[in-house]
Formats: sequence, structure tokens, C-alpha cells
Amino acid sequence: MRIVLVGFGAVGKALVGMLEAKAEELYRAHGLSPRVVCVIDSGGAAVAGRGLSAAALLAAKTRGGGGGGSVAGIEAEGAVGLRGVEAERVIKDTAADVLVETTPTSVRDASRAMGHLRAAMGAGMHAVSVNKGPLAVAMPALVQLAAHNRVMLRYSGTVGAGTPVLATARTLAAGDRIVRVRGILNGTTNFILHRMQTAGESYQDALAEAVRLGYAETDPSADVDGIDTATKVVILANAVMKMGATIGDVRVSGIRDIERSRVREAAERGMSVKLIGEIDATVGARGGAGRALSVGPAEVERGGPMDVPRNVNAVEFTLEKSGTVTLVGRGAGGDETATAIVRDLVEIWHEGGGGR
Amino acid sequence: MRIVLVGFGAVGKALVGMLEAKAEELYRAHGLSPRVVCVIDSGGAAVAGRGLSAAALLAAKTRGGGGGGSVAGIEAEGAVGLRGVEAERVIKDTAADVLVETTPTSVRDASRAMGHLRAAMGAGMHAVSVNKGPLAVAMPALVQLAAHNRVMLRYSGTVGAGTPVLATARTLAAGDRIVRVRGILNGTTNFILHRMQTAGESYQDALAEAVRLGYAETDPSADVDGIDTATKVVILANAVMKMGATIGDVRVSGIRDIERSRVREAAERGMSVKLIGEIDATVGARGGAGRALSVGPAEVERGGPMDVPRNVNAVEFTLEKSGTVTLVGRGAGGDETATAIVRDLVEIWHEGGGGR
Repeated sequence: MRIVLVGFGAVGKALVGMLEAKAEELYRAHGLSPRVVCVIDSGGAAVAGRGLSAAALLAAKTRGGGGGGSVAGIEAEGAVGLRGVEAERVIKDTAADVLVETTPTSVRDASRAMGHLRAAMGAGMHAVSVNKGPLAVAMPALVQLAAHNRVMLRYSGTVGAGTPVLATARTLAAGDRIVRVRGILNGTTNFILHRMQTAGESYQDALAEAVRLGYAETDPSADVDGIDTATKVVILANAVMKMGATIGDVRVSGIRDIERSRVREAAERGMSVKLIGEIDATVGARGGAGRALSVGPAEVERGGPMDVPRNVNAVEFTLEKSGTVTLVGRGAGGDETATAIVRDLVEIWHEGGGGR
Repeated sequence: MRIVLVGFGAVGKALVGMLEAKAEELYRAHGLSPRVVCVIDSGGAAVAGRGLSAAALLAAKTRGGGGGGSVAGIEAEGAVGLRGVEAERVIKDTAADVLVETTPTSVRDASRAMGHLRAAMGAGMHAVSVNKGPLAVAMPALVQLAAHNRVMLRYSGTVGAGTPVLATARTLAAGDRIVRVRGILNGTTNFILHRMQTAGESYQDALAEAVRLGYAETDPSADVDGIDTATKVVILANAVMKMGATIGDVRVSGIRDIERSRVREAAERGMSVKLIGEIDATVGARGGAGRALSVGPAEVERGGPMDVPRNVNAVEFTLEKSGTVTLVGRGAGGDETATAIVRDLVEIWHEGGGGR
């Protein structure tokens, strides 16, 4: 399986390393031999028909100095570096089976990542995206494009990452009807709210602590305003409930204005305040996606499975027949996201008839 | 898809009803039209090439009076009742695609259910078993038999039932390595231990309460001695970690001798005593299945995702890269188990090339 990787940050690096470390295991268990034949970053591309090694890619990235290095500076036998080339052009020109899109998510400007996915699928490649931007703004169109080109589009790293939220949802939906989903899908906000509850801190102090410990970025807007959770709600609603939604269909409120007193008062009633993304499938059936999807602060039972600490994620599925099923685990992180990409690649390999 | 159903108790009845209720949905979502062409119970069989209706089957079962009724007493157009026939014979003679085995589990005498599965797979049918007996005593042989006959053997209702424990484990194993599994897999024992903890009752009193409320059977040995949990450990270890184990490989201790003081003392340390089934894959790699598999009372963090109340199940997977993932949900029950069977049928349909 020949892979084009776009983006060579924490996730891209973890992926290339993981594919090398797991090469033998992937072949033994699935008959799969993944080969990264092209890596594209903001400075250019590295190409090698026989595969690029993690060591050579990392060396090129480091060589630039001061963070200016690009994989285009690669020096390795059989590898060619292409400085300043246009990503879409390189994608179209590379003979590969799958594109993996790992550039940073931006909902406001998703056009570049969208271009990568379009170029790949248009050229007959399967696509794996861990970038949530294109899915948030245009998932129904991307799904259609994949169907039109008879390729697979996978994105299991976008929701829950190391915790297989989408796969679990699909399994549940195969035997029963999912009537409601409630998820704690953003680690940063959960860290802040958990901290407000356990340490009695104000929102500002808890946020500062999250930034200090690396749980929040210096501009945490996408997290604390609920945008990140909303993108995940859109992806879940489309992937599992076929709602055909985009981010404009989600009623979103964040946690910026949460008062310490609200958190304390909930705790006194045996409840914890969480930022909850919710999909109400019964509303969806009646009145369109708009009213079915929401993100906002809400309460969960203290000590229950949804009362997760720190930056842990949790998703509760309410089923028509089988009660509730809750999945708890780590959310994002370079390794976790790379793990999800590997899962997608294995799935594409099997569904495409590989290993039969 | 033509189905032979063996066993017409709570699960069998729920399944036939569910297939009727979901007929339109299964066709719309998966292109699947399941048809129950043969039902076998201890009194005989009912056969109808165009499919048996739930109403006619239930009427036949009721007609016997005093619980003596058999589906063999069926009265419906196109249906034939066969009294006192041998199950294996009927299975072999029926032109069907899948056998569903739902007779009650017995680890001590699994031979009858084993015969049903062997007969079906030998005749080229796929098999779905929610009976854990044959899997506990001879899962490696059954898996081999399925491979030899190029049919699929599914059993997702045996572990967690409504909660997709096996499917989640497979998903996790596709992207990462599972190094340890710890599960609360038996509702009866969890009800008893939770009751001892929250109400301060003795084991005997808590057991009596479990029997009174229908959470335990009048002979609860298989549950409280850990046998039921051990069968689930065997199935998980084989299905996901390919350990080739049988129930003799599990070191089992139950909860009969649990003292109230032990539960109380653990609670004081912030821990809850649970009956835990454990698979340690690192031991398995070094020293064979025997030392890797165990069932016994152990402690979990109070308020953590494994600290589930009443008869809820929970399974914690420890992954090499992605930390822990915990799945929490209802265990057994007629509807939950039927849901799992429907999931298996959909999977068999898709993997067998249906709906492509």
C-alpha cells in the first residue's frame, strides 16, 4: 500500500515511526505492507518510490534549523526533495493508493486541506483525514465525492483518536438503533472543568493551569468556545446517523462564562458540569439536523461513567433496546491519532480486498 | 438469508420478534432479508421454506400448556411441525445459510450444543452461537472447523451481549497492541458485591436479594464460582489475542467466601471489590495461556470507569500506545443478546459479500 502523507507535525512523525515499528506485525496479522512514498509539508515534498524512512525525514526536518526545515531537504538514496511545490499537484502526480491528511485543523480556513482530499480522491486514491476542518464544513460533499470516485474516505482519528468512538458507534448501530449520543469529546475543556470542580479554581485560573501543563494551546478559542466539540458532533452525526450535517447545523455554546458557583452548586447536588456534545436522533428524524445537534455545558452524574477526570474523553450511546453503552478513554495525542490512522489503513486494506 | 434457530427461550423469542420488527430497516440499511426457515426446541422442530412468523411460533409454544409446548405444534400455512426429531438431523437436512444456537449454556455438558454447531458448519452453514458452553470447552477446535469448511463462526452475544465487547476489542487490536484486559463480565456477582458494599450486607443476604430481584438464578454456582466469567475470558482471549485457550487454562476463584469486612476495608481505602476476569497478554507471550488467564476478586478504583453499579458490565483494555479504553454497558438479557445476534448476522451478510 503506497501512502502519500500531507503534514509532518506530531501526528505525521508518529505515524511514520509507527508504520516502521509495526511493519512486521502489520504484515503478519493483515498481509499489509504500507510504504510512505511521498511526504508533503509547508516547505515542499519528499518522494521515493521505494518508501521514505522516518530517520531520513526527521533529519531533513531538523536540518533546516530554527524550525525552518522541510522534508524537501531529504538526503537519502532513491529519495528526491522538491522545494516549494504545490501540494495538490504533487498529490495528483504521485502514484499512490491512499492519502493521509494530517495538517492542523482550522474550521475557519479548511480550504487547503479540502483541496488535498479532493485532489487525492479525484485521482482515485482512498483518503484518511485526521484534519477535522474539511469534515466540519463539507462532510456530506466529501462523502459524495468518495462515492462518486469509488474510493474510501476514513476519519476515525477525528473523534476520540485512540478511543474508537466511530467504530463503536457503527457496531452499535448495526444491531440496534442509537437514539441519543452524549459525548465529552474535548480534553482541554474537561481538564478546565475538572480543575474548577476539584481545586475550586475560577475559569481563568484553571485555563492558565491547562496552558501551563500543555493541555490547552495559548489560543484556546476552538476548545473553550465549543468549536472542536461541534466538529466532532458533526462527524459522528454524519458517520453513524447519516444526518448530512455541517457545523452550521450545531447549536454551540462554550465554557468561557462558566462561574465557579455553578460548578460548586452542581457538585453539591452530586453532579459534575461537563462540556457535552449531543446528538438527539429522535429530533433529527422530526425536524432536520439543526435542532438535533448541540454543544454546551451540561451535568452528568458524579461517579458515573461519564464523570471522567482531566483530559479523558467519554461517549454515552443510548440505544433503543440495549440501554446505554459508554466508552471511556484518551482523546487526542500524536501517538493516539497515529494509532487511529493505522486502524483506518488496515480497514481500507481489508475492505479494498487486500489480504484475501 | 435463511436461518435455522436452535432454542426458543427468551433469546430465541426476542430474536424472531426483533427480525420481524426490524425487517424493513435491515433491508434498507444493509440489503438484508433474514428469514427464519427452521426453529428447533427440545420437543421438535418447525419448518417453513418461506419463513416462520413469531406469532405462529409463540402460539405453538403456548398451546402445549404448562410449559410443555413445542414449536413442533405449529399451525400455519406452509409450515410443518416435526415432533421428537433429532436436532442434528434436521439441521443437516435444512437448506439454510446460517445456524443460530441459543440453547442454555452448560460448561459441564456442552456436547449437545457442540453437535448443533458441528452439524451446521459441516453442512456449509455459517454459525452464530450465544451459547458459551461449546466455546468454553473447545473454541480452538470450532474455529478450525469453521476455517476448514470456509464458513464464519460468530459469538458476539457471549461476552457483554448488548455491549459490543468483542467488536471493540477487535477494533483496538487493529491499530494498537492490547497488553491487558480486565473485565467485570458477570452481572450477578457484580450485583452481589455492589450490594455488599453499598448496603453493608453479608454475601448470603446479598445473594438472596439478587435471587429475589431476578438478578441471580436459584442455582447461582456458575456465576458466583466464576465459571461464567471464565468462559468469557476464554472467548475474549481466543477471539482477540489468538491464545488458543480453553476453560482449563483459566485460574478461577469465585466470590462465595468474600467477607463483608474485606469489602468494607477496601471501600475505606477508596476501592471497590469486583469479580475481575483478566487476560495478561505479556504473560501469554512468555509462558502459555495457563498463567495469562485468571478470574477472581480484585479491586478497582472507586468512582473510576470500572466501578460499575448493579449488574452493569465493564471492560478495560490497556493498550501499548493509547493508554486504557473502558467500555461500560448492560450485559445479558434477552433483548440485548438478540441485538448481538442481529449484529452478527449483518456482519456475516456483509463479509459473505451480501449487499455488494
